[in-house]
Amino acid sequence: MNRVTQHTGSKYPIIQAPMGWIARSQLASAVCEAGGMGIIETSSGEIDNCKKEIDLMSQLTDKPFGVNLPLLFLKDDSMVKFCVEAGVKFVTTSAGDPTKYVDTLKSAGITVYHAVPSLDGALKASNAGVDGLVVEGTEGGGFKSPVEVGLLVLIQSIKQNIDLPIIAAGGIVDGAGMAAVFAAGAEGIQMGTRFVSSLESPVHDNFKNKIINSGIDDTYILNKKAKPVIRALKTNLTKEIDEKGEMDMTALMNIKKLYFDGDMESAPALSGQSAGLIDMIKPVEQIINEIINEFNTTCERLSNCKF
Amino acid sequence: MNRVTQHTGSKYPIIQAPMGWIARSQLASAVCEAGGMGIIETSSGEIDNCKKEIDLMSQLTDKPFGVNLPLLFLKDDSMVKFCVEAGVKFVTTSAGDPTKYVDTLKSAGITVYHAVPSLDGALKASNAGVDGLVVEGTEGGGFKSPVEVGLLVLIQSIKQNIDLPIIAAGGIVDGAGMAAVFAAGAEGIQMGTRFVSSLESPVHDNFKNKIINSGIDDTYILNKKAKPVIRALKTNLTKEIDEKGEMDMTALMNIKKLYFDGDMESAPALSGQSAGLIDMIKPVEQIINEIINEFNTTCERLSNCKF
Repeated sequence: MNRVTQHTGSKYPIIQAPMGWIARSQLASAVCEAGGMGIIETSSGEIDNCKKEIDLMSQLTDKPFGVNLPLLFLKDDSMVKFCVEAGVKFVTTSAGDPTKYVDTLKSAGITVYHAVPSLDGALKASNAGVDGLVVEGTEGGGFKSPVEVGLLVLIQSIKQNIDLPIIAAGGIVDGAGMAAVFAAGAEGIQMGTRFVSSLESPVHDNFKNKIINSGIDDTYILNKKAKPVIRALKTNLTKEIDEKGEMDMTALMNIKKLYFDGDMESAPALSGQSAGLIDMIKPVEQIINEIINEFNTTCERLSNCKF
Repeated sequence: MNRVTQHTGSKYPIIQAPMGWIARSQLASAVCEAGGMGIIETSSGEIDNCKKEIDLMSQLTDKPFGVNLPLLFLKDDSMVKFCVEAGVKFVTTSAGDPTKYVDTLKSAGITVYHAVPSLDGALKASNAGVDGLVVEGTEGGGFKSPVEVGLLVLIQSIKQNIDLPIIAAGGIVDGAGMAAVFAAGAEGIQMGTRFVSSLESPVHDNFKNKIINSGIDDTYILNKKAKPVIRALKTNLTKEIDEKGEMDMTALMNIKKLYFDGDMESAPALSGQSAGLIDMIKPVEQIINEIINEFNTTCERLSNCKF
């Protein structure tokens, strides 16, 4: 038990990232059942569907789960109200001003973690009164900061300045990675790419197989001079975007064709560098059990490393 | 004791990076005396001076020390011969084809570690028969690979494929960072920026103070589309280079003015993201003792983290 599991109410401090369209009840409930923290996304903007998915969760698991609120993309406060009414206990906020709904959420008894890619972001979130931080290193996939700071450096810098529990995200797929970020000061991990390529992930096998066959240098950071900055797998499409040097949100318009029809060129295939560390589609329960076993073994091994 | 300290013969697996002009006997002998592994650079190209520095080392310390050979920049094999004749026992090679002198060095009883920024580089070095690897994450300073992979991801990927001892480099300044990379599979750390800003470092206080006052996002990766790719602190000069998008080797021509006259705009101030984690000029002995103490404490703390 540590501060993160006290906040999430889950057995293990392993959080599933809120990937748009993917972080739905099928995947999230599997994560909860295996002792982790499943999160329902709302970044797809499909508000009605996401509400249904939140309702479905209580039928699929009696374990606690969470919801992600991407502040910049919420048209109004209806999702916030819905979370409060649905009895959600854990929310991660991201992509926007952390002060926006933190008081509303906290006064409803909801624990709020804000996702940050920088020390500045962490200080703002801390001042806003959040309960914890999801600290996202540049190694991770999906929507990114244009400022590329490595996860270990970022965690340590934030630890030097702020005493909030940290969930580390970016490049972690196993128990050695989990032990590494715990050594640096984190108390939890969040994984996206590892769960995208799990058995229970709803995406097409083409996407899962592309992750499995990628190396650690098979992603691009795209669109650094504009918004959104994303990390995605190398494909013909992302090579073009990289060469052109710019992209707009419409590039992601057809991402459902990639996720569910397996057309890998229909949109950027969002993924972290950790694609290069993943070589098998596995059930969520196996992923989580292997992580905890390796985490425990690694902690044990380190205790014999002292000088 | 682990494979790295067996190879270096030093008390602790803490290696000082081979910064051109800076990694000379004053700094390197202080590192050796404090139980780490001091390395004499030859990348400055000042071959006669470097030979003198190597000779000086045996007057300054009776501890083992090493030499770095940047393969691409060596005009001939005279430095290789000199190392053999001087009885050097530990060499790191970098920047070039690892097969070039590995047999010559190893048949003279010298242990050879090759510095790599990628899995491909690590596989080539392993096939060349090196004894170990210096694995350099994108977080680090100085000469870099254009492919930016985070240190944790890189170590884990190499561990999955190669069983050679790994010295991790990039973004490490303290015992928590050391424990983190040990968790990921490293058996040693190499630090540049932390030693550049040490008391015994020969550089001007302007440079040391600039490191101390920098944040983790105060570096640029410059010149990604050409060579050399470098990571350097944000200054007016490096901002210009960043905006222009290109640079050639002549940009580094006046680096001695930066290092020894403290003119921070005379050349790119090579530094890692770890500048943002360093807030004090400290003697080398204090740096190393604090790292080992914190490393031991962190290993102890982790052994109580198990789930």
